[in-house]
Amino acid sequence: MSYSKRNHEVMISVSKNRQSHKRENRVVDFLEKHFAGRSASIIRGIGDDAAVIHQQGARENWVVTTDMLLEDVDFQKGWLTPGQLGHKSLAANLSDLAAMGARPRFYTLSLGIPATIPDNWITRFYNGLTKLASTHKILLIGGDLSRSTNGIQVTITAIGETWHRQAIYRSGGSSGDVLYVTGTLGKSAAGLNLLKQGHTKGTNISEKEALKAHRTPMPRCEVGLWLLQNNYASCMLDLSDGISMDLPRLCASSKVGAEIYIGDLPIFLASKSCNSDPLNLALNGGEDFELLFAIPGNAAAGFEKAYPKKFPRASRIGILTSSRGVVLRESPGKPARPLANGGFDHFN
Amino acid sequence: MSYSKRNHEVMISVSKNRQSHKRENRVVDFLEKHFAGRSASIIRGIGDDAAVIHQQGARENWVVTTDMLLEDVDFQKGWLTPGQLGHKSLAANLSDLAAMGARPRFYTLSLGIPATIPDNWITRFYNGLTKLASTHKILLIGGDLSRSTNGIQVTITAIGETWHRQAIYRSGGSSGDVLYVTGTLGKSAAGLNLLKQGHTKGTNISEKEALKAHRTPMPRCEVGLWLLQNNYASCMLDLSDGISMDLPRLCASSKVGAEIYIGDLPIFLASKSCNSDPLNLALNGGEDFELLFAIPGNAAAGFEKAYPKKFPRASRIGILTSSRGVVLRESPGKPARPLANGGFDHFN
Repeated sequence: MSYSKRNHEVMISVSKNRQSHKRENRVVDFLEKHFAGRSASIIRGIGDDAAVIHQQGARENWVVTTDMLLEDVDFQKGWLTPGQLGHKSLAANLSDLAAMGARPRFYTLSLGIPATIPDNWITRFYNGLTKLASTHKILLIGGDLSRSTNGIQVTITAIGETWHRQAIYRSGGSSGDVLYVTGTLGKSAAGLNLLKQGHTKGTNISEKEALKAHRTPMPRCEVGLWLLQNNYASCMLDLSDGISMDLPRLCASSKVGAEIYIGDLPIFLASKSCNSDPLNLALNGGEDFELLFAIPGNAAAGFEKAYPKKFPRASRIGILTSSRGVVLRESPGKPARPLANGGFDHFN
Repeated sequence: MSYSKRNHEVMISVSKNRQSHKRENRVVDFLEKHFAGRSASIIRGIGDDAAVIHQQGARENWVVTTDMLLEDVDFQKGWLTPGQLGHKSLAANLSDLAAMGARPRFYTLSLGIPATIPDNWITRFYNGLTKLASTHKILLIGGDLSRSTNGIQVTITAIGETWHRQAIYRSGGSSGDVLYVTGTLGKSAAGLNLLKQGHTKGTNISEKEALKAHRTPMPRCEVGLWLLQNNYASCMLDLSDGISMDLPRLCASSKVGAEIYIGDLPIFLASKSCNSDPLNLALNGGEDFELLFAIPGNAAAGFEKAYPKKFPRASRIGILTSSRGVVLRESPGKPARPLANGGFDHFN
């Protein structure tokens, strides 16, 4: 028996609600304490991006995750087209599967919508959802549709499949492993800031890119699977709450600390043009849905050489350490300062 | 690729919203038309109580269903304790598994709650949920918790396992099969009526029983599995919307009609004391979560003899016919009148 701590976190993070974070931690503590059942069929439960379950005789394991998006908490209706909302709802789940190195297979969808929403909205929502689904070869197998008196609610449960029964967990990291992150950090948060400022269209390429990252994030399933199949990553999660929230989770699971080198972070520098501090957003902005993973030191050079050019850039941003806690340095050897866990209240 | 029509229906039925029923049918038509993908792994998709998927090498199949409960649509907070809400949310999903003859295994939970709800509420919700879960040996494997600005939302996805890779579908019925239903009909609706009239406690045993049926319905998983293991039922679904809604669905899937004998219906007669018409509620009341199934005529006597006494009563209520349409008769041979599909607008 288990409860995916990660999923809790994803959700709360998306809502950018620090109070909720605290509550969520209490709830997860409660669940871990009182619901710690066991089953031989449950390979991994509470505390990772998704659960892993096994069925007798099966060649592979299933990987299961669920995410909820609520209007006025996770999104404003005017900020996203119906198709973008469909895309984003599924992307959050796919990103959880990516972080396990799992291959997407099936999903269910529960959709609550006010009676005032036209049929056309539903069609567009499904079209956006299905476009991303077909890219990742994930098939809709069930769902629920309800009238809602309280805005739009989307809950998706995604089921992935392992490769050779393997998964990449948060807990496998060791001191000395090199930390990498895919893509660019803070781009989605820059887009969110633009929307909050009323800029829904973007006036230049950077702004358009930020809005796109926020509205239609691309889950890194291909990268996650490649890392697993090539046995590179010792541990992994997806960045939904920003490094300042997510890296301590990785470290806690792996029982290590970490150093991050600011100069090496793939910061979305154009955040500045979105009236935001790029470093702040890179560390604390949510919903980048990039992969954060570690590679054993002696394999790092080989990994960098083998990493396919077609994939989004993977940046070496730091190292796992034996001393607990997460610290920031300008570069290796420079003075350290602690990375405040959600210390930047940018979204509050 | 598939979409569980049934799940749509369950949800809408719970909301007692005829408009939503019509919309839902349009949406399912749209999904069936545009999303009719295929996969060898999907044994059954759109149009049943749950999806059935297969994994290479596995001895059994998984059975997957999802249901959403929304405050102010499916329930009023004052009508249920947190524990009862937890119970009911899971019960609706378990009932879908029961209707397939599947054994409950795992579930995920997404819970949206307003910031004003105290931690104690969450604890009580989980306790109610877990009590029912442990009865049915279904284990929590993941979830999501979010602050909600719009009332309480609960979405559960349940995963069951087949027995010998078999499932009972809606589509297996034939003309001449005898129709049975478990338990009592209209009891939950009588409870709902009491709540709507402000009677939250019940002043006599019947009222208390009705309230209990509405708040903490007992899914018939044991019966469903027994029917499957003994190979009795040709088709089955669970009654979430009342016979007038659900029986036509069973008939449509099996391409048959049906006759119902009013005198044989296990009507909750005490509905009268709840200021309701017992027959109306038995035909049109939702959320009974009883099983409606058919047994081939030549097996009916054997079934009735073998049916375990410890199970809720199974009543023979009618027969599947070759002529399409569902008709009501007082008893076999008596004049027929059509059963109006949701014709009683009791809940409107």
